[in-house]
Amino acid sequence: MVLLTQSRQALIGFIGLGNMGAHMARNLIKKGHELVVFDVNTQSLNELAKFGAKVAESPADLASKTQNIITMLPSHPHVNEVFLAKNGILAAVQKSTRCIDCSTIDIEACKRIAKLCSEKSIYFNDAPVSGGVTGAENATLTFMVGAQKEDFEVIKPFLECMGKNVVHAGDVGHGLAAKICNNMLLGISMIGVAETMNLGLSLGLDKHVLAGILNTSSGRCWSSEVYNPVPGVVEGVPPSKNYEGGFQSGLMAKDLSLAQNASVETQSATPMGSMAYNFYKQMSNQGFFKKDFGYAYEFLRTKKD
Amino acid sequence: MVLLTQSRQALIGFIGLGNMGAHMARNLIKKGHELVVFDVNTQSLNELAKFGAKVAESPADLASKTQNIITMLPSHPHVNEVFLAKNGILAAVQKSTRCIDCSTIDIEACKRIAKLCSEKSIYFNDAPVSGGVTGAENATLTFMVGAQKEDFEVIKPFLECMGKNVVHAGDVGHGLAAKICNNMLLGISMIGVAETMNLGLSLGLDKHVLAGILNTSSGRCWSSEVYNPVPGVVEGVPPSKNYEGGFQSGLMAKDLSLAQNASVETQSATPMGSMAYNFYKQMSNQGFFKKDFGYAYEFLRTKKD
Amino acid sequence: MVLLTQSRQALIGFIGLGNMGAHMARNLIKKGHELVVFDVNTQSLNELAKFGAKVAESPADLASKTQNIITMLPSHPHVNEVFLAKNGILAAVQKSTRCIDCSTIDIEACKRIAKLCSEKSIYFNDAPVSGGVTGAENATLTFMVGAQKEDFEVIKPFLECMGKNVVHAGDVGHGLAAKICNNMLLGISMIGVAETMNLGLSLGLDKHVLAGILNTSSGRCWSSEVYNPVPGVVEGVPPSKNYEGGFQSGLMAKDLSLAQNASVETQSATPMGSMAYNFYKQMSNQGFFKKDFGYAYEFLRTKKD
Amino acid sequence: MVLLTQSRQALIGFIGLGNMGAHMARNLIKKGHELVVFDVNTQSLNELAKFGAKVAESPADLASKTQNIITMLPSHPHVNEVFLAKNGILAAVQKSTRCIDCSTIDIEACKRIAKLCSEKSIYFNDAPVSGGVTGAENATLTFMVGAQKEDFEVIKPFLECMGKNVVHAGDVGHGLAAKICNNMLLGISMIGVAETMNLGLSLGLDKHVLAGILNTSSGRCWSSEVYNPVPGVVEGVPPSKNYEGGFQSGLMAKDLSLAQNASVETQSATPMGSMAYNFYKQMSNQGFFKKDFGYAYEFLRTKKD
Repeated sequence: MVLLTQSRQALIGFIGLGNMGAHMARNLIKKGHELVVFDVNTQSLNELAKFGAKVAESPADLASKTQNIITMLPSHPHVNEVFLAKNGILAAVQKSTRCIDCSTIDIEACKRIAKLCSEKSIYFNDAPVSGGVTGAENATLTFMVGAQKEDFEVIKPFLECMGKNVVHAGDVGHGLAAKICNNMLLGISMIGVAETMNLGLSLGLDKHVLAGILNTSSGRCWSSEVYNPVPGVVEGVPPSKNYEGGFQSGLMAKDLSLAQNASVETQSATPMGSMAYNFYKQMSNQGFFKKDFGYAYEFLRTKKD
Repeated sequence: MVLLTQSRQALIGFIGLGNMGAHMARNLIKKGHELVVFDVNTQSLNELAKFGAKVAESPADLASKTQNIITMLPSHPHVNEVFLAKNGILAAVQKSTRCIDCSTIDIEACKRIAKLCSEKSIYFNDAPVSGGVTGAENATLTFMVGAQKEDFEVIKPFLECMGKNVVHAGDVGHGLAAKICNNMLLGISMIGVAETMNLGLSLGLDKHVLAGILNTSSGRCWSSEVYNPVPGVVEGVPPSKNYEGGFQSGLMAKDLSLAQNASVETQSATPMGSMAYNFYKQMSNQGFFKKDFGYAYEFLRTKKD
Repeated sequence: MVLLTQSRQALIGFIGLGNMGAHMARNLIKKGHELVVFDVNTQSLNELAKFGAKVAESPADLASKTQNIITMLPSHPHVNEVFLAKNGILAAVQKSTRCIDCSTIDIEACKRIAKLCSEKSIYFNDAPVSGGVTGAENATLTFMVGAQKEDFEVIKPFLECMGKNVVHAGDVGHGLAAKICNNMLLGISMIGVAETMNLGLSLGLDKHVLAGILNTSSGRCWSSEVYNPVPGVVEGVPPSKNYEGGFQSGLMAKDLSLAQNASVETQSATPMGSMAYNFYKQMSNQGFFKKDFGYAYEFLRTKKD
Repeated sequence: MVLLTQSRQALIGFIGLGNMGAHMARNLIKKGHELVVFDVNTQSLNELAKFGAKVAESPADLASKTQNIITMLPSHPHVNEVFLAKNGILAAVQKSTRCIDCSTIDIEACKRIAKLCSEKSIYFNDAPVSGGVTGAENATLTFMVGAQKEDFEVIKPFLECMGKNVVHAGDVGHGLAAKICNNMLLGISMIGVAETMNLGLSLGLDKHVLAGILNTSSGRCWSSEVYNPVPGVVEGVPPSKNYEGGFQSGLMAKDLSLAQNASVETQSATPMGSMAYNFYKQMSNQGFFKKDFGYAYEFLRTKKD
């Protein structure tokens, strides 16, 4: 069997062929790797099979066939299931197998699985992504990797088949920590920009003038410059397309809930992060789960009574 | 009498020779203008006199001597006093005088004075600054100007004697609106970065690694890149110098209070801006008024019990 | 002319015959007082005329006819207009007139008018109410009065014609201060109860059991006991009647905005009060201005995605 | 062996003899029960032994000696340890043993242990308390019990030896849910009262007058009436005794962190609860962990600059 450490042309197991995972798996195949895949969705499996992947019958079956496994799953119950269930990876995993989990999950849940893997002498690293479906499709994702330095070097080339930035965040769990921190700050900034633009427009400022001033001043941030939530300020982004596509508000709420967990776990104060969590959760509860997260602007926009 | 409209070599009245104003007045003299100045602080007056300025006995006296008046005062009661008191500008102002108020004050207070000026056929424009004492000293301030287009063109060259960016924000009051909006977003971002860095460090991330990831990702903002509140992340900024110098937390609270007023006035929701106001107000109440506003990090930093 | 100080049977001017004011004016007539009334709404005026009131042509006209004036207006621009306009009270007011303003307005606006009155040697006291339209109709309002002790004693019997509790809060402006403080705490408590009930129900608790536990424990408050926002917990209150009637969310937002003004004016931190303001403002912006303020529960209720 | 179901004179195992637990154990002895106790602190054990309790060598040893076990521990890692460690309860527990956990812990952690107990055919119920050390000493605690109706009836008489109110909150986990909800609302109310009193006093109101008005109006709550955080308003409570004794701010932060966990777990929005968590966490971080939670008033009190 060819290990990640030995060759660029490896047999890779891939579990989780959703919106993101299917593109990531295809990109690995395009770069010349052999794939064995698994998903609970048969249709997704068949599509990858047509694209050249072998199909496993379960995570355990997959684990018996390869020592290189990538997982890309929606949340930590799925990851638990895939690793720990009766037909899960750990039921049939071979020694020295390398597991890379690209899911965005709770840090404590990640560490628990990492510990179980370690007890079986298998490698486990977290490598959550940013860049969305577009990044997955175009292999331009950013990976934030939690791994020992030497492990990072081993897995980096494989992640580079699926993304353009592979960042070493620290040890196991730190990839998730970095992603969760970034997205917490993103959630805060987006609401901050939304309410600032709304206030400015209510005060009579022109949206382009205000955005221009912010973007050349100390208020400048990614959410004001690249992804301004006011329709028409930045062309082509979801806020200018009726908040369709992009990063769903409900998924932002999920990432912010992971930050809340981390905040409680570490006994940290995150006043703005908490407010952002509650804001997006209320938006979702009001029926805007699927709207791009720039919808924060519309959610708090001043209407005349 | 030489008007701003007629010559670059004008006689300019300047009221308010504090930390900022004294530097600004000197820069006008350095660029060749004649100055007549007023301040309640005699020492400040004397120092400008040594630098070549004439001294007025009151705002009214000053207004009787020039039709070009710049004011740079701490808050709107001072501005009211300077314009409306018995010896105030309006008591002796000449028709067609041009008043430029560089103070950061309440928008409604600004509009009230502008209206009184207009009734006397004199010009009034708001031109609040950003850039701090250093910017005032080095003539690198940014001016955000609220003025009719033709008035903006008239006063721009004079402001350029004191700053390097002179931005036209819109009509009267819009200079203040732009500054207040920018600083509200800045206050939000700074707290957001502070709590994000604190959470990340509590999770075991390295401060340089985390800052690096944020600054190349969607969490990026001025407060994370240029002025990171964690000591040692950015060299030379106040957070790396025991939070001395820089933008005082108490003054940030003041600017955020202006945003609160504007929010209520326009019936806007500014959840994060309100939280930022209360955060900096509590910091000030706890004794940290004079600390740089990056002290937000220290104020919420996790300590082990 | 019969003054308030001389008789229980007085001639009273009443300005502002809206939902609250019309009932209050009628109650004064029922208790035997003579009324002269003014409102911009002719229909309201006619109805009071049918009930026995004389009609004034303007606030000035009214002020020329009586030295006892009660005002009950929606917000401080209306109060300014009624007192300061060309045909306003101050244009024709007689010395020693007693003005009692029952409106809920900005404290600073109240103090400005009080000062102008004082300069004309007329009395001005604030006496905002709580108890709503029902309280106005049934003469069971609570009045919170800002007045010198001796003035309080003079006006108390007249207010008792319209309400059952007349509380002396302190000097001029303190009636408003008390009301604004109470309503800020009420707004906070209501949201607090709403989210607590929602959390408990999401955790599987029965709504009656949870309300019962809170109401016998340290979480107990008026909003949990008397006016629980979960439909069906307290019978007969607006939350149990589809949030119709009661205290409109938009008016709660208005009262909270007055607290925001007071907070900035006194440089106080009101983190929860600010959040409550923004919460009700967002609710209003989302279209729920007229819903009872207990709708906070519905606004943040957890829905399954 | 005498079971709880058979007699009022039972042999009861008690684990956790801290500030609360030691008093609770003594009260059981006073009411005629025999006790076997365990704690990691030898001194605490010795003191209970002097009072007549037998001493066990470990939770497992204790579990081998009685089928009635009460635990009172600081947080869920302790509970996990006591139940699941090598020498833990589950290592030696007898069938049909009844475990009552009076600790205030994470609901999910409670449910996990309850499930493990159920798999071993032993009873597990949560019965967290309120009332503090004084309540524990005087046997006036309130117990909020999560149990099947028939189990509640069985354990109620025993809890009544230690408290005066024993409330049935619902099934397993619901005792904790009720306590966490109550304390979240309490934390919110206390901050709300603190900032309301501070605002009112800043506006010039007398503290007794303001408290009196709130307590007869819709702002009324336990924190304003019984435990007002302004020194001198209510005699005898910790806020009137330099915030010594009472409910520590750091422990309030802990309870609020459990509410945060519950909020994320159930995908609920708790904007005020989150703010309260962050507020008390910041207070703790600033060095006020041990101050009574009414110190919220002092923490945000307006000081003159």
